[in-house]
Amino acid sequence: MPFVTSRRGDDDGSSATAKADSLSSNDDDAPDSTTSPPRSSSSRLPTISLDEVRASRAVAITLLARLEAEDTDVVPTDVGSKHRILITHDDVVYDIGEFIKNHPGGARRILRAAGGAVEPFWKMYAQHSAPGVRAVLDELAVGRLSTSDVAKLQEELAQELESDPFANDPKRGNVEEKLLVHSYKPFNAEARAESLLLQQHDIDDDPASHRLAFVTPNDAVYVRHHLPVPVGGGPTSIAVGECRFDVADLMDESKFRRHRVKAVLQCSGNRRSEAQREARELELPDPQGLPWKQGAIANVEWEGVLLADVLRAAGVVPEKKMVTTNDGYERHVQFAGADVPRVGDWKDETGFYGASIPLRHALDVNREVLVAFRMNGEPLSMEHGYPLRIIVPGCTGARWVKWVERIEVADDESPSFWQQNDYRILPGSVRTRADADFSAMPALNGTPVSSAIIWPPEGATVSPSEDGTVEVSGWAHAGSGRGIAYVEVSIGSDGVWHQAEEVRRDADQDMRGGSFSWTTWRTRVPLPAAPSKGGEGEIVLRVRARDVDGNVQPDANGACWNLRGLCFNGVHARRCNAAAP
Amino acid sequence: MPFVTSRRGDDDGSSATAKADSLSSNDDDAPDSTTSPPRSSSSRLPTISLDEVRASRAVAITLLARLEAEDTDVVPTDVGSKHRILITHDDVVYDIGEFIKNHPGGARRILRAAGGAVEPFWKMYAQHSAPGVRAVLDELAVGRLSTSDVAKLQEELAQELESDPFANDPKRGNVEEKLLVHSYKPFNAEARAESLLLQQHDIDDDPASHRLAFVTPNDAVYVRHHLPVPVGGGPTSIAVGECRFDVADLMDESKFRRHRVKAVLQCSGNRRSEAQREARELELPDPQGLPWKQGAIANVEWEGVLLADVLRAAGVVPEKKMVTTNDGYERHVQFAGADVPRVGDWKDETGFYGASIPLRHALDVNREVLVAFRMNGEPLSMEHGYPLRIIVPGCTGARWVKWVERIEVADDESPSFWQQNDYRILPGSVRTRADADFSAMPALNGTPVSSAIIWPPEGATVSPSEDGTVEVSGWAHAGSGRGIAYVEVSIGSDGVWHQAEEVRRDADQDMRGGSFSWTTWRTRVPLPAAPSKGGEGEIVLRVRARDVDGNVQPDANGACWNLRGLCFNGVHARRCNAAAP
Repeated sequence: MPFVTSRRGDDDGSSATAKADSLSSNDDDAPDSTTSPPRSSSSRLPTISLDEVRASRAVAITLLARLEAEDTDVVPTDVGSKHRILITHDDVVYDIGEFIKNHPGGARRILRAAGGAVEPFWKMYAQHSAPGVRAVLDELAVGRLSTSDVAKLQEELAQELESDPFANDPKRGNVEEKLLVHSYKPFNAEARAESLLLQQHDIDDDPASHRLAFVTPNDAVYVRHHLPVPVGGGPTSIAVGECRFDVADLMDESKFRRHRVKAVLQCSGNRRSEAQREARELELPDPQGLPWKQGAIANVEWEGVLLADVLRAAGVVPEKKMVTTNDGYERHVQFAGADVPRVGDWKDETGFYGASIPLRHALDVNREVLVAFRMNGEPLSMEHGYPLRIIVPGCTGARWVKWVERIEVADDESPSFWQQNDYRILPGSVRTRADADFSAMPALNGTPVSSAIIWPPEGATVSPSEDGTVEVSGWAHAGSGRGIAYVEVSIGSDGVWHQAEEVRRDADQDMRGGSFSWTTWRTRVPLPAAPSKGGEGEIVLRVRARDVDGNVQPDANGACWNLRGLCFNGVHARRCNAAAP
Repeated sequence: MPFVTSRRGDDDGSSATAKADSLSSNDDDAPDSTTSPPRSSSSRLPTISLDEVRASRAVAITLLARLEAEDTDVVPTDVGSKHRILITHDDVVYDIGEFIKNHPGGARRILRAAGGAVEPFWKMYAQHSAPGVRAVLDELAVGRLSTSDVAKLQEELAQELESDPFANDPKRGNVEEKLLVHSYKPFNAEARAESLLLQQHDIDDDPASHRLAFVTPNDAVYVRHHLPVPVGGGPTSIAVGECRFDVADLMDESKFRRHRVKAVLQCSGNRRSEAQREARELELPDPQGLPWKQGAIANVEWEGVLLADVLRAAGVVPEKKMVTTNDGYERHVQFAGADVPRVGDWKDETGFYGASIPLRHALDVNREVLVAFRMNGEPLSMEHGYPLRIIVPGCTGARWVKWVERIEVADDESPSFWQQNDYRILPGSVRTRADADFSAMPALNGTPVSSAIIWPPEGATVSPSEDGTVEVSGWAHAGSGRGIAYVEVSIGSDGVWHQAEEVRRDADQDMRGGSFSWTTWRTRVPLPAAPSKGGEGEIVLRVRARDVDGNVQPDANGACWNLRGLCFNGVHARRCNAAAP
């Protein structure tokens, strides 16, 4: 009876409909936990009573109180050798005493689970569904519960889990019409291919065209949550250093200048399903995370106030705009969201979703970092961070903190788990979580050059027109404001690349000194050889782009493989069928 | 008797010594012109007398005077239909009347060659050695000179060519000790692998180490000239808009703040020899240009004054620092060098080496664009642009104008040939010069992520140490200030990548908000299997880097092929031999 189940997305049909009921369990950035090795040794473990498990809660609470009082996660060295600290998962009992000091989420957080079942915590802290986690736990197994104790525990858990921390999430109605859902709790969903296209009534001149909408409609903007949506409608004010601004203050044009910018929001894991497919073909370790296709990206017109103005109003811009510490290191602006882990009545106030960017970026007028309250002319929805969301044009979505309620200027990056231990690309030589040293790698901000075919969809049957060509359309984008120099499409394996036509860029990009929007393109490419009459032939369409700095996309040959499957930017291949004429 | 000869560099031995005498002819960014198709039709052409050829000079001079007076290159439509305008090349006579209006270098420039031999002009404007040029000319052939006229012309040309436009170039002494020379006229030479390494007396702790010097010594900095070095010791003053500053003014610390920055200078064609090798293997068209290996790059500490300060002092910074035109396009800062084409006594004042960068870059304090007069603590040498050179950290070397004598703020990019019709990456679908539309592509400024092995040299025999590892070292770099996240090295074909150790970055990069220096690295990698005792086995060492925006280098499989072979950044493979233990 595992509480943490997960499901691999369907890689091969972008129009596949996700079933809500099969997704009601937690499913975050992690592959299928059922692929973990079976705990073969557990059957030989001694029986431990539930009472004995619960007894270790006292030890844990004492230790927790001491750590809280000292505001530290540094565990005394004798913890673990003096007492066992037990938790359960399914029917197995584990001694975490020695492990506490190594817990990536900190000692205090794991201590809260001591003396009982770990499942509710894992359900909340979704990173535990990564396969390496289970292997770590397996090594700590010390016993099994009796059948009657398992039954007792199950009953209690059922009650605890009834208080669903995600119960407050927005009602999502027919969200699956526009979005392909990867998980419901937390909610994660990307745009279906069709949702990114212009609606037919928008296209006067060529009703048969499948162009991308240059600005993505709000209901087609992907959603990527790590935690439950905040309870109570989002914060009504924001703390900036020692100051506090009501949301209404920020929206008051007599107090803050309005600013609008069209910019791409993209999940760091966009296109991960391709990375996963490539890894399977090359027998590389599976890149861990949700199997996003090519729709965890959107180009939106954001409206708000410049973060630099907010920082100045709060008096937290340092003298002479010193953007580095006295030691010469970058200073940072930290953002904290109102979304926090919740288990039952307990809220993990230190577990908020947070991120940071260099202070230099925040103050650079060319980068247009915003505290935004509108997208595409409408107020932000709860789903997209109502009332306030950080917008960092040119930067990966992980730093665009939703429901932002605190902003600080600090010498260090955000202490958030997602800033410290995720959203950093690990070198190719790091093959397991155990080898991962996130602190050795820079935090991901800008993103590499990338592109994808959106039309035709994977597996579609396309009919060439009379001139023997087929229509292909999609997007291209590079982070840090680097524009796209050109986009090329190939068909089949003849190695011939055709420069894409109908390339659309942000008309303002020279004004902005950077290309924060994506580049959309639509073109027709000649089918190399028509399939025999009445038959169908598989064709592979490929797209690649080059950014203005000359960066290209690698072939999908493992060149950008990394353990977390972040920023996959290999040449995108789309398999379709060509109908005979 | 072709006057334009060229020579392909030796791709396979970085220690090969270039022979001066074999290089005394012109050799610029173009492959071997002897690969042009033979002019098979020329033998059937009618004989035309040298007097008739010369007669067309009068027509040309009249037209030239008119164009000069109107300061235009727009040729009246009837030119070419009314009169023949003849030139000669070898013994063939060509009518360029219809071609004048299409000449990429402008009508006025080609008119100067009318009525005589084109060879001296081609010798100066080295872009004519590209293969497509000869094909264009072949279509214009209208006759042949008699044997006696050819002899007469040859004698005159011999005299004209005796006045060597490069005679004023610096005496270069034993330059080949440090540099591998690709051409002498104009002078083009890159650092030999050994020249980039720390000298043994610099390495106290590990005398057997082959580390790169983090700052490249001046005598190991590559040289890339397009034209003769200016006569007379370089300009003594610089025009900035309507103002003029003596060089001494710029160096006067009471007038201008000094500024120092360590930054990579890299030729846009660095590593082109690898692009050419790849193209041969894949049967792609040969990327046109000098066959630079991995040494057309240097990391230097530059000293000078901020271009932004100079622009302000000259009063040419627009109101409100408007960096765009009224129409919303980028404005530019144009630089003109004192190096100009020279044929005999004639100087082409409009043919100067020039370039431009967006005004926004010039004014961005984070980009540290300089008018520099010192490198590594010494005054610039004539070879490197004495007295003043433009330094654009993060930007390709083509914009770092040497001997700069004019700076202008303008709505358009520099009119220079090298800004308009070169140093732009053409799409992969452009396979010939005839298909090239440089105006459709953005000017190259920033550069893609790249890396190279410098030690061991190509073809070297390396001996593994007792632990079975071999030493590898080199550089990694990405333009636009993007830092390097990590460097990985592989050996053999097992697909295992080892993260490089001893990675050195600019200690100041956080202070600067960008990584303008290169990243050097030295590491030891395990030899997969030792060759049999007493034998040798070929090994292939590879290096790849990832920049902080997640860009990776593609495999050398044509992914970054472009007609001019610019910015090749494929994974670098170095073939060596492993000695048996």
